[in-house]
Amino acid sequence: MIRFECDYAEGAHPKVLEALVKTNFEQSPGYGADSHCAHAQELIREACEDPLANVYFVTGGTPANVTVIASLLRPYQGCVCCKSGHINVHEAGAVEATGHKVIGLEGKDGKLSAETLRNYLESYWADPTHEHMVQPGMVYISSPTELGTVYSKSELQALSEVCQEFVIPLYLDGARLGYGLQSPGNDVTLEDIDRLTDVFYIGGTKVGILMGEAIVFPRGNGLDANFQSMIKQNCSMLAKGRLLGVQFEALFTDGLYEEMGKHAVDQAMRIKEAFKDKGYRFLVDSPSNQQFLFLPRDAKDKLSKDYAFECEGNVGQEEFLVRFCTSWATPKESVDKLLESIKSL
Amino acid sequence: MIRFECDYAEGAHPKVLEALVKTNFEQSPGYGADSHCAHAQELIREACEDPLANVYFVTGGTPANVTVIASLLRPYQGCVCCKSGHINVHEAGAVEATGHKVIGLEGKDGKLSAETLRNYLESYWADPTHEHMVQPGMVYISSPTELGTVYSKSELQALSEVCQEFVIPLYLDGARLGYGLQSPGNDVTLEDIDRLTDVFYIGGTKVGILMGEAIVFPRGNGLDANFQSMIKQNCSMLAKGRLLGVQFEALFTDGLYEEMGKHAVDQAMRIKEAFKDKGYRFLVDSPSNQQFLFLPRDAKDKLSKDYAFECEGNVGQEEFLVRFCTSWATPKESVDKLLESIKSL
Amino acid sequence: MIRFECDYAEGAHPKVLEALVKTNFEQSPGYGADSHCAHAQELIREACEDPLANVYFVTGGTPANVTVIASLLRPYQGCVCCKSGHINVHEAGAVEATGHKVIGLEGKDGKLSAETLRNYLESYWADPTHEHMVQPGMVYISSPTELGTVYSKSELQALSEVCQEFVIPLYLDGARLGYGLQSPGNDVTLEDIDRLTDVFYIGGTKVGILMGEAIVFPRGNGLDANFQSMIKQNCSMLAKGRLLGVQFEALFTDGLYEEMGKHAVDQAMRIKEAFKDKGYRFLVDSPSNQQFLFLPRDAKDKLSKDYAFECEGNVGQEEFLVRFCTSWATPKESVDKLLESIKSL
Amino acid sequence: MIRFECDYAEGAHPKVLEALVKTNFEQSPGYGADSHCAHAQELIREACEDPLANVYFVTGGTPANVTVIASLLRPYQGCVCCKSGHINVHEAGAVEATGHKVIGLEGKDGKLSAETLRNYLESYWADPTHEHMVQPGMVYISSPTELGTVYSKSELQALSEVCQEFVIPLYLDGARLGYGLQSPGNDVTLEDIDRLTDVFYIGGTKVGILMGEAIVFPRGNGLDANFQSMIKQNCSMLAKGRLLGVQFEALFTDGLYEEMGKHAVDQAMRIKEAFKDKGYRFLVDSPSNQQFLFLPRDAKDKLSKDYAFECEGNVGQEEFLVRFCTSWATPKESVDKLLESIKSL
Repeated sequence: MIRFECDYAEGAHPKVLEALVKTNFEQSPGYGADSHCAHAQELIREACEDPLANVYFVTGGTPANVTVIASLLRPYQGCVCCKSGHINVHEAGAVEATGHKVIGLEGKDGKLSAETLRNYLESYWADPTHEHMVQPGMVYISSPTELGTVYSKSELQALSEVCQEFVIPLYLDGARLGYGLQSPGNDVTLEDIDRLTDVFYIGGTKVGILMGEAIVFPRGNGLDANFQSMIKQNCSMLAKGRLLGVQFEALFTDGLYEEMGKHAVDQAMRIKEAFKDKGYRFLVDSPSNQQFLFLPRDAKDKLSKDYAFECEGNVGQEEFLVRFCTSWATPKESVDKLLESIKSL
Repeated sequence: MIRFECDYAEGAHPKVLEALVKTNFEQSPGYGADSHCAHAQELIREACEDPLANVYFVTGGTPANVTVIASLLRPYQGCVCCKSGHINVHEAGAVEATGHKVIGLEGKDGKLSAETLRNYLESYWADPTHEHMVQPGMVYISSPTELGTVYSKSELQALSEVCQEFVIPLYLDGARLGYGLQSPGNDVTLEDIDRLTDVFYIGGTKVGILMGEAIVFPRGNGLDANFQSMIKQNCSMLAKGRLLGVQFEALFTDGLYEEMGKHAVDQAMRIKEAFKDKGYRFLVDSPSNQQFLFLPRDAKDKLSKDYAFECEGNVGQEEFLVRFCTSWATPKESVDKLLESIKSL
Repeated sequence: MIRFECDYAEGAHPKVLEALVKTNFEQSPGYGADSHCAHAQELIREACEDPLANVYFVTGGTPANVTVIASLLRPYQGCVCCKSGHINVHEAGAVEATGHKVIGLEGKDGKLSAETLRNYLESYWADPTHEHMVQPGMVYISSPTELGTVYSKSELQALSEVCQEFVIPLYLDGARLGYGLQSPGNDVTLEDIDRLTDVFYIGGTKVGILMGEAIVFPRGNGLDANFQSMIKQNCSMLAKGRLLGVQFEALFTDGLYEEMGKHAVDQAMRIKEAFKDKGYRFLVDSPSNQQFLFLPRDAKDKLSKDYAFECEGNVGQEEFLVRFCTSWATPKESVDKLLESIKSL
Repeated sequence: MIRFECDYAEGAHPKVLEALVKTNFEQSPGYGADSHCAHAQELIREACEDPLANVYFVTGGTPANVTVIASLLRPYQGCVCCKSGHINVHEAGAVEATGHKVIGLEGKDGKLSAETLRNYLESYWADPTHEHMVQPGMVYISSPTELGTVYSKSELQALSEVCQEFVIPLYLDGARLGYGLQSPGNDVTLEDIDRLTDVFYIGGTKVGILMGEAIVFPRGNGLDANFQSMIKQNCSMLAKGRLLGVQFEALFTDGLYEEMGKHAVDQAMRIKEAFKDKGYRFLVDSPSNQQFLFLPRDAKDKLSKDYAFECEGNVGQEEFLVRFCTSWATPKESVDKLLESIKSL
């Protein structure tokens, strides 16, 4: 069985593991106050071309989202996002558990548009009863989105402008950012994201390390007051904090992050083309490592014999929405084999 | 500089790292639904001699405490513990952030006595205004405690009886349980703990693995309803859940857990004896890997030149409370050297 | 200016005020442990024909909703409701502040259908990732709804059956229940509601008393464990608890509750007919004290000179959605006058 | 049976009731946006000699405390208070339910001293692990305290200075402030409290109105951002908000607040003297309407026949701690009778 189920099926890139092994018996202070974390923070600041950025490491994506959102909102505020946003669907109510409503707006291809956002914000503030309604206190987007689509620079710019106009922070969940940055057609850089958002995270768990995400507060903007306490309170801290530093050091050395991102996307594009050549419909036109498409029962059953992939449910009687997902670890040979199988469907 | 500051300064035991390296490219489903987690759970059930135990893995100690406590309590209930309990002091208000009061009772040497507990519970229920007070909904203890002391079997038995009488669960935080089990004079086994508590966790982070704790719900007692959702909601889950399974597999294979526990305690006892021989006073008589003692300024300053250790603050003008801590990773040679230095104080 | 803005513009029915004046210097124990509360509870049990019902008094509607929902849900659960449900829109995030997601489903005329509910519940439980999603833990409906519509007995029966099938409680917010019970076409009694729901509240604030709602847990179902503590914790308790008892005593004596409900609905029907006769469109066909309709700008402006009513916003350029609301206190003469004005539009 | 149990046994002062009756059929907008609330706010601003104060009305004491504390704190902060503080003991964990630790410090006679506060704050900030501990984010005091004692101006001044030095707000719970202001020896005015605290509330529930407290944010200090939403979210709002305005209007007209306060304290002093003359010991030297003293079993039993008073528990075998409490409503004749009974003990 070859698995295209998700991008967290394997461990870490060998260079990352090697760094962990090499540093294993170093003695360092706990909770991230070590030289590897400091170095990794510096590398990330350089990658973002933002010498004033404050960088924090947490154990995973939900931990990152919860800690950021609970830090930024006041009790009477909620977090606006696309209905399909991860925080609204697949985090077991973690944001609400910190006391805040997730305000889901209609998206398009998994993305929140500046227009939708503006309309919502205007109508909220125009409503004479708005004191009885949850105040929109920040905006959450993910890029790539849960559907694999990627925000363009102009889309980010437009969202950023709306947020500035309404004086609320824009937060970007970059769980799969490494794949988005390498997507064909992508015109966004880490520096752009740093400039256009108020906080974002660079995902490591899904892009080559064992676990961990790097949260970036750009330009010394001060939104990270007592953030270490928030990380601790929200169960997102490792006692052996340096494990995250060591891994991000490896990720941001010698272009490993870019290399892994590119590999995964290249393999995904091959799969996409193969399915397209056979005429299958796609849910959205995704340029990144997740491909959602519709397979007839017969094709699904055939492929299921040799490949694991996610089946999102049946659409009508005989059609199924499925996801094929590549990662930094997907062997080219596995994709070769899959392509053969697709051809012969 | 040789560090005796804490028991999380290094990475993982080489056998644990090796297991991670060896399994690195296995593909497995996420969130703990893999064969390594299943195997590790089985090994732990065997170690506890409890075939009905349900075992869950989380990322750390605060995650374990928060997830367990938030799961067990109803909104009107709080968690009773010793004032010095970790949840009451050093978890940044993580339990309160889930909406529950931590009810700190006076301890002795870091331990909560059955008598103190009973007196408190009796007075609570006898108070005619108790509906206006937070109801004691569970009891938290740690063993070894934050001061290094270890509960005896009779102490656990007595606490267990009080909890049963008042029908509230007893929870044991075993962050350093591996050290407690190997302490001289210890008469408690994993099987005892499984029998005498309603939920406990076996700490891995401080006993030889990179990170992770195994939460055990004994005897299929049903207190773990939807616990996976609670783990997710409380930011305590790894996407690559198998990383925890693989490490606990290694820990519970070939006696590694016992071996590491014993090593740390042996080294701690050597340090304890050396300080005792020089006549220094101890805060408590700790049989485990943490030793708290009082050093005059002069001795503290001398030792600080070559050794890192925790200074808990000065007591009076010229005396300091310090902690020396060993771990599975403490080289015997480091202790040899420290012993020489102590002798020549 | 005559006000048809809301049903809480005046104080209390004279008989209610009189009861407060009459009992003013009685000395009674606090927090609801007095004979008036006991008597009012008994009267409500009789009205519901449920000798085993447990009845509690709280200060208002949001207090009732929050206390009930926080009591019934486990941390990993959310409350299902119609998107237009009061808890989802106009309670300033009070439910989320207790840690729970409000799961809004599409409604029809402000009502949640059994079919919509069943489809949602089935799809939730069929989703293989449901452990990562908020579990539906209870269902909230309001009757009359926020749009004035009223659930029929068969609709309630159908919802009740779905809830029983999925073993989750059904909760009815009866802020305006007194008006719903007197609506033309209504086929539901208090006894039906008691039988078909797991908890509901009888609203007093909007039906003739100064403030207060009576929460009913039918048939000694045990869902009210430590409910007094929950009331206290959720800021929903009065020190002078008897004030609520005294008022509900008056409400459930000599048919006052029914009388006031009927009066308000009668007046609302007169207004409805008058607007209908002039050919105005209604948002929904409401049989209760709230009437939502569309007025052209001209008509709206004319009526605004003498009457206060709620304007919900403009629909297109020249049309407005407005609400006319009657209450127990609406003088027949005020409606006479309004009818004249409508006729001459 | 004559009741000296508490100060909320009766309804409201006749002038307050009269105002409610008189305004009963006025139509006013909901939620406090009415002219009575505006007028009452103005009267309170005048009483505090603070034209910039922002005043809000809520339903009770716990509602006031919860709404203020949840508004002022950030998630990583807790509220410091005296161990005997109402929020720490008798509010059913309402503060913790909003996610915040209540940090109880040792008091003296129910009061928190500036020295105790300073020592705690200094030790917190000096602790190198303080990021793992709940940060003190505000200070709560009550005056009169739960034991009846009253803060002097110099005590308030000293607390205020410590709070300013550590840049945290000082909050005063004035549930019984009306009694404290009339206590013999009191040297504090409303204007002093307004000047020395950052937020406080003037209690109505225990000082002559049916229910309600007025929260004051002095000097336009801006700590009340979106406070109306917070009141709604925390279940502390009345739909018929004007009921609170009307009552506070009456309270602050023609010296009624002062008159009621003085009456209660005068009666309490008579009781205090009578017990003192008989040689009974007091728990503390209280100058206000609550008197805590020790009675031998025999005396307690005798008095219990004709008088209700609170028994706080037995002290030793044959002695009991009891509370006698007067209020604005305590008839002078009832005290005459009690004095006779005390004399003949």
